[in-house]
Amino acid sequence: MIVLGIDPGYALMGWGVVESTGNRMKLIAYGCLETKAGTPMQHRLRSLQLGVRNLLEIYKPDEVAFEELFFGRNTTTALMVGAARGAAIIEAVAYTENLYEYTPMQIKQAITGNGRADKPAMQQMVKLLLRMDHIPKPDDAADAIACAITHCQAGPARVQFRMK
Amino acid sequence: MIVLGIDPGYALMGWGVVESTGNRMKLIAYGCLETKAGTPMQHRLRSLQLGVRNLLEIYKPDEVAFEELFFGRNTTTALMVGAARGAAIIEAVAYTENLYEYTPMQIKQAITGNGRADKPAMQQMVKLLLRMDHIPKPDDAADAIACAITHCQAGPARVQFRMK
Repeated sequence: MIVLGIDPGYALMGWGVVESTGNRMKLIAYGCLETKAGTPMQHRLRSLQLGVRNLLEIYKPDEVAFEELFFGRNTTTALMVGAARGAAIIEAVAYTENLYEYTPMQIKQAITGNGRADKPAMQQMVKLLLRMDHIPKPDDAADAIACAITHCQAGPARVQFRMK
Repeated sequence: MIVLGIDPGYALMGWGVVESTGNRMKLIAYGCLETKAGTPMQHRLRSLQLGVRNLLEIYKPDEVAFEELFFGRNTTTALMVGAARGAAIIEAVAYTENLYEYTPMQIKQAITGNGRADKPAMQQMVKLLLRMDHIPKPDDAADAIACAITHCQAGPARVQFRMK
């Protein structure tokens, strides 16, 4: 099974592709879709949409796992990141019904066994689990890979994380 | 010039098509795209996206005018409405570069001459300006029509309302 993990963002949208065969996981590719501040908002959204479309066409994932977003009080940011996430979801649902969603805490728990793990601990485990020779950068890509790993490791229990 | 006005929303997205020739405006059509609570979020977004695509294909507007969104403190709502707005913008920018945006206050000012006008006053003016025999319903459709009228009336000054 090939899983595309996505950490939705507006300036940076992390992604990671992981192949899982039985208990074995293999990192296929990872990176970030980037949109530049100062560019018109509609072009940034369009570029994220087409970026996700490219990833789906290139890696042909069987399932897509999103990291859920949480916000404090900044509704302006929430509006924009919500739109970025919407752009990614729209492309994903046009491609497959197999969409899943994990909270940051679920991902930390799955990767490190500790739902409150910090970033360095998370990234070390991602490196270890995928036998990488360095920590994946930037953070957004590492988060997306962690989300894809979480989905691979969930096994049949992943039905409960279906996006709804 | 044919203008599609959009009042972005998640459960209800209002729309209105207005044709303007010189100083004369004519209402072509209006309505709401509706998504049902309880339906998976990704399907609701997809349905809004395809709904906007349909409107663009049917009415072939020259320009699209969005009502800007504002939120209080509810970031969860902002995330979802932001995604709905993103879905509409993504379709619109794939269709045309002529996207504009007006704040609720700018729309009220343009329609009634009072930036703090209430809904009944707004809707009466929309009815009057477009020589309708009844007030347009639901409210979301009336808001979208008002947004399209605002854009038509802005004349050359509308360049300053380009979406960015």
